[in-house]
Amino acid sequence: MNTFGKFFRLTTFGESHGKAIGGIIDGCPAGLKLDFDQIQSELDRRKPGQSKIVTQRKESDTVQFLSGLLEGTTTGAPIGFMIPNENQHSKDYEHLKDVFRPSHADFTYYKKYGLRDVSGGGRSSARETANWVVGGAVAKQFLKNIEINAFVSSVGDLFLEKPYQSLDFSKIESNIVRCPDDETAEKMIQKIQEVRKAGDTIGGTVTCVIRNVPVGLGEPVFDKLHSELGRAMLSINAVKGFEYGSGFCGAKMRGSEHNDIFNPDGSTKTNLSGGIQGGISNGMDIYFRVAFKPVSTIMQKQQTINTKGESVEMQGRGRHDPCVVPRAVPIVEAMAAMVLADFVLMDRISRM
Amino acid sequence: MNTFGKFFRLTTFGESHGKAIGGIIDGCPAGLKLDFDQIQSELDRRKPGQSKIVTQRKESDTVQFLSGLLEGTTTGAPIGFMIPNENQHSKDYEHLKDVFRPSHADFTYYKKYGLRDVSGGGRSSARETANWVVGGAVAKQFLKNIEINAFVSSVGDLFLEKPYQSLDFSKIESNIVRCPDDETAEKMIQKIQEVRKAGDTIGGTVTCVIRNVPVGLGEPVFDKLHSELGRAMLSINAVKGFEYGSGFCGAKMRGSEHNDIFNPDGSTKTNLSGGIQGGISNGMDIYFRVAFKPVSTIMQKQQTINTKGESVEMQGRGRHDPCVVPRAVPIVEAMAAMVLADFVLMDRISRM
Amino acid sequence: MNTFGKFFRLTTFGESHGKAIGGIIDGCPAGLKLDFDQIQSELDRRKPGQSKIVTQRKESDTVQFLSGLLEGTTTGAPIGFMIPNENQHSKDYEHLKDVFRPSHADFTYYKKYGLRDVSGGGRSSARETANWVVGGAVAKQFLKNIEINAFVSSVGDLFLEKPYQSLDFSKIESNIVRCPDDETAEKMIQKIQEVRKAGDTIGGTVTCVIRNVPVGLGEPVFDKLHSELGRAMLSINAVKGFEYGSGFCGAKMRGSEHNDIFNPDGSTKTNLSGGIQGGISNGMDIYFRVAFKPVSTIMQKQQTINTKGESVEMQGRGRHDPCVVPRAVPIVEAMAAMVLADFVLMDRISRM
Amino acid sequence: MNTFGKFFRLTTFGESHGKAIGGIIDGCPAGLKLDFDQIQSELDRRKPGQSKIVTQRKESDTVQFLSGLLEGTTTGAPIGFMIPNENQHSKDYEHLKDVFRPSHADFTYYKKYGLRDVSGGGRSSARETANWVVGGAVAKQFLKNIEINAFVSSVGDLFLEKPYQSLDFSKIESNIVRCPDDETAEKMIQKIQEVRKAGDTIGGTVTCVIRNVPVGLGEPVFDKLHSELGRAMLSINAVKGFEYGSGFCGAKMRGSEHNDIFNPDGSTKTNLSGGIQGGISNGMDIYFRVAFKPVSTIMQKQQTINTKGESVEMQGRGRHDPCVVPRAVPIVEAMAAMVLADFVLMDRISRM
Repeated sequence: MNTFGKFFRLTTFGESHGKAIGGIIDGCPAGLKLDFDQIQSELDRRKPGQSKIVTQRKESDTVQFLSGLLEGTTTGAPIGFMIPNENQHSKDYEHLKDVFRPSHADFTYYKKYGLRDVSGGGRSSARETANWVVGGAVAKQFLKNIEINAFVSSVGDLFLEKPYQSLDFSKIESNIVRCPDDETAEKMIQKIQEVRKAGDTIGGTVTCVIRNVPVGLGEPVFDKLHSELGRAMLSINAVKGFEYGSGFCGAKMRGSEHNDIFNPDGSTKTNLSGGIQGGISNGMDIYFRVAFKPVSTIMQKQQTINTKGESVEMQGRGRHDPCVVPRAVPIVEAMAAMVLADFVLMDRISRM
Repeated sequence: MNTFGKFFRLTTFGESHGKAIGGIIDGCPAGLKLDFDQIQSELDRRKPGQSKIVTQRKESDTVQFLSGLLEGTTTGAPIGFMIPNENQHSKDYEHLKDVFRPSHADFTYYKKYGLRDVSGGGRSSARETANWVVGGAVAKQFLKNIEINAFVSSVGDLFLEKPYQSLDFSKIESNIVRCPDDETAEKMIQKIQEVRKAGDTIGGTVTCVIRNVPVGLGEPVFDKLHSELGRAMLSINAVKGFEYGSGFCGAKMRGSEHNDIFNPDGSTKTNLSGGIQGGISNGMDIYFRVAFKPVSTIMQKQQTINTKGESVEMQGRGRHDPCVVPRAVPIVEAMAAMVLADFVLMDRISRM
Repeated sequence: MNTFGKFFRLTTFGESHGKAIGGIIDGCPAGLKLDFDQIQSELDRRKPGQSKIVTQRKESDTVQFLSGLLEGTTTGAPIGFMIPNENQHSKDYEHLKDVFRPSHADFTYYKKYGLRDVSGGGRSSARETANWVVGGAVAKQFLKNIEINAFVSSVGDLFLEKPYQSLDFSKIESNIVRCPDDETAEKMIQKIQEVRKAGDTIGGTVTCVIRNVPVGLGEPVFDKLHSELGRAMLSINAVKGFEYGSGFCGAKMRGSEHNDIFNPDGSTKTNLSGGIQGGISNGMDIYFRVAFKPVSTIMQKQQTINTKGESVEMQGRGRHDPCVVPRAVPIVEAMAAMVLADFVLMDRISRM
Repeated sequence: MNTFGKFFRLTTFGESHGKAIGGIIDGCPAGLKLDFDQIQSELDRRKPGQSKIVTQRKESDTVQFLSGLLEGTTTGAPIGFMIPNENQHSKDYEHLKDVFRPSHADFTYYKKYGLRDVSGGGRSSARETANWVVGGAVAKQFLKNIEINAFVSSVGDLFLEKPYQSLDFSKIESNIVRCPDDETAEKMIQKIQEVRKAGDTIGGTVTCVIRNVPVGLGEPVFDKLHSELGRAMLSINAVKGFEYGSGFCGAKMRGSEHNDIFNPDGSTKTNLSGGIQGGISNGMDIYFRVAFKPVSTIMQKQQTINTKGESVEMQGRGRHDPCVVPRAVPIVEAMAAMVLADFVLMDRISRM
């Protein structure tokens, strides 16, 4: 249950309070020359402490590769990797030992497994997503020409109103909120700082656009390209919703408005389909939107209960994100990359 | 790739133009007494021709069980079943032989597999979902006390505005659009008829509520309860989006508003979490919403291309749904039931 | 648990007393033109009643294909098939209702599932292997040039002493015991008839030789080509052992005798490796041997117990094989073919 | 392809020349208190350099656990572990850079992956089995009362002729060849030393006996208990054959001799079935025998070819086992333990 993917597979382990987290990438074909700086730079995009609007926890998140490589090229053998934990403040969690934090996984884990792994939230810690970024970074290199770009499209009720086609994706990394529109980015940053000062947190959305996808990825029935993308996104901590192409807006439309009319070359004049028809890519841009709830740990007093079922008061401590979407951007891209890598491999066996 | 589920597994086959569709339910524990009338009645909820607002195609959709049962009780052996195809109007599709219908799977299938399986759309036909309803009906009986109710919550821009808690689910089947609010239902029916008269189609949403779920279903990382529900819903034809609990609205909220405060018994005062925290059920109602695009086949002239890449004009023929959501209701329930059955079994191995 | 294979997958259902058995072949690439006569002829090699040395039960074992084909060519969709049961003599089993037959699966099934599916032995019936022969026949056609030939290499203590290289495989079907050496075949047939007359049964071995295997099939660690072949063979009813290449004899040898010295072209002078080195095919012939125990149902009085744990006397009735190996030959080939098809597909994703 | 097991799963990585090998144990239920000394002692049984009849390479094989544990008890999270490589003599392999060693995996790997991972043989190195011993040691502790004992039953043509029932398994570890019969052990040790002096190697067999197995483990069709045991054993390096219960001898017998007659309590008077009937355990001892070929690396001159297809002469160097069976004993037990753990979990979902 800790394996993602069918062909390009990532199996992971680790909690934030142990010695290390890590994983095994299995199924990456032999002969792929890896750019390790690129992998580390993806981790750097996700790591804590990178800007004033994210958690101030410090982790260098340096990945070590342990196997599966010969002079930097994949051998077809499983790629084992490890990211040491440097910042294990178990004390930060001591006050939580007997308390169930509201809207966290504390209560459900305890009931499921019969024990509390308090420090850092056990496997529910978002630290796990560093493993995913490693898997995704390898997948991106495997995908070569396929371009995956995610960006922050809303923070609270502040929306980036422009169509993605008008955006310059090279600007995503130019600001700390990862929104490729300077004006909106500035407002988002202010909003997040304001929320943080109030000891509160705020939700947001991430939009992802995938270009240069070959026609034919995805399976017709249970492994539709979009159902696997949706599942991947819904695996990310704090995600509450997923829509692709016309999404929830499409549910308000009529067929005569919604149909994408073909050009003679097989491309379509519009792209409400979001690059996927019948579960299979049609060569147009794939785009989707992911909704993230506000982080549950707030720096305000809240009523809650302890393990004995007694009502107690608690207040968040430690270093937490006031808004997850800026750091979620590389995670969304990583999960998308692993899904696509899986389907690229899967497609190799669809014809004689 | 035609198998759904890890423990409670449904593997399916069939196209609408063949002799039969069918499947194999594998992993259903021994000792479950099945109510076959109940299974058939779920199929009847999905079948075409049941009312004036759905396709007028006629199929009795009668399921035949072929194995895995002893005097109506499951033996632990795989349950093979078959639904004969009665209404194979291959001629209905002859005019499509060389044409790619807009926003259908015709183009992507052809490119993926190198051949056209024109009649009825091959595996992309929604007829496949009859198999899912059989699997889901068996799963529902396995789940016993867990109650799964889906209903139509919007058609186009007509929304059922009431909170689900105020609805009487016993009224879902009292009208042909499957909306448990008489007034809204009436408007939806009128809207669909109006759209049909215009030779057009319209989208909508289905909401699903699951009650009496035990605490502890779902896995912390890659098999989160909601990511599997999302994947299941996104497998249904025409689905463009999925949200659970606060969903996309949650992305606009602050943590202080969004957190669900505990009652001493572990239940929560609010339920923006949607019954799932950290990927695991917390015992509160699970609820989610699914967006369906308008059906692509419209009874209007459209420009499109043929297999030679020539621009041609086409018009939908045959008998199609003007709006899929009324018939999607039992499909949403079926997929939800199979996901839950899978997790109930999975949970049996989580502790010593 | 009723699915065989990872890429080329067969999922099956059915008991001998139901309406039909059948299965779904999933993962067969699109574009394979099938020869249906060839498939039926493989079933005819397995069917009961074909000669005087096998069970006299009569079943035509006619396979019906239900999906996944367009004018006889695979479409990439799952291939559903069915074999109706014609000869359901439930009465033959009535006397067994409360009795556990020695060395049968009666006792273990009852304890595992808590119920008796007496008629025909439920899923433990060798009738299930007819499904495998269908899957294997499709796999054989997928494999094209790879030649798979199995034959009877011993019956009781009568051994075919010649090396397989000296045999003419075209003679396998020339006699009813399926041993490609006339003289030995004749002795085997006599032996089986003698055993049958005594109301007894006898064991034997089947040898299988696979030619024209490309270099590179199989995985280095857990999916070694020979471990999957072994598993496949050990899935066949009554099998007690598997060895490939030098097998158990190899365990007596020294390295200096056992090593296969290379020819300049990469072929080897000897082939004690059995065509597989490090789990991966090396292009030489693959060969292995499978041991079958004597059938448990004998026409003699035996002491046994009933479901109450009382000692009772029973005697086999009905129509049973005195020796399974002649009919096991096509089953061994079918399972080998499915394993190879799986690895041929798997190998498509091993390199960039 | 580097994952073993369906429920109790071990995924591994590592080559002998990298920094470490390791793995992830996923699916071990929460609440199992682990005895780490016991785990390390299993590794010590497998490690090189432990006696005069095994390779003199030195590796401490110390396992480090990285996750999934809380105060020594499993939490239900994946258990990551690592075994650092201490003895990386890449130079030992330099002379092999362009040479294909006879009966090794060099040639097949090169052809499959298009590259040579010379040092230590890449994933084909038996070092990988240290990972399996860790997985097996955890599985053994999960299995509690089920006792798994393997021992050397032959070296070359020297056989331990006594029935296993007459052996004292507590003596297995009393001698360096791991044969629980002093006299035979002494002869085996002499034989191995003699072979080593001749620069040669020799094959052998390992027998494994599993006691206290509950009735009902195993699945009727494709996941028979013995087919998974066979597959597991055939995954071990150098294995050429597997037989259980009567095995290849059973193929010479008659049904009237071979049938195991029941005692009133459901046990059987004889146990030619080897504790498994119809693929499911019947509560009697499970026993099986595994054939190992002689190690391919010999200290004698051999003709072989290089990567250019030129004929060259080579001679084994480095430190290799003259006979693998003494060190294979804990590996056989480990693989058997993982198979049984898988089936114990699987059986939890077989009934309502």
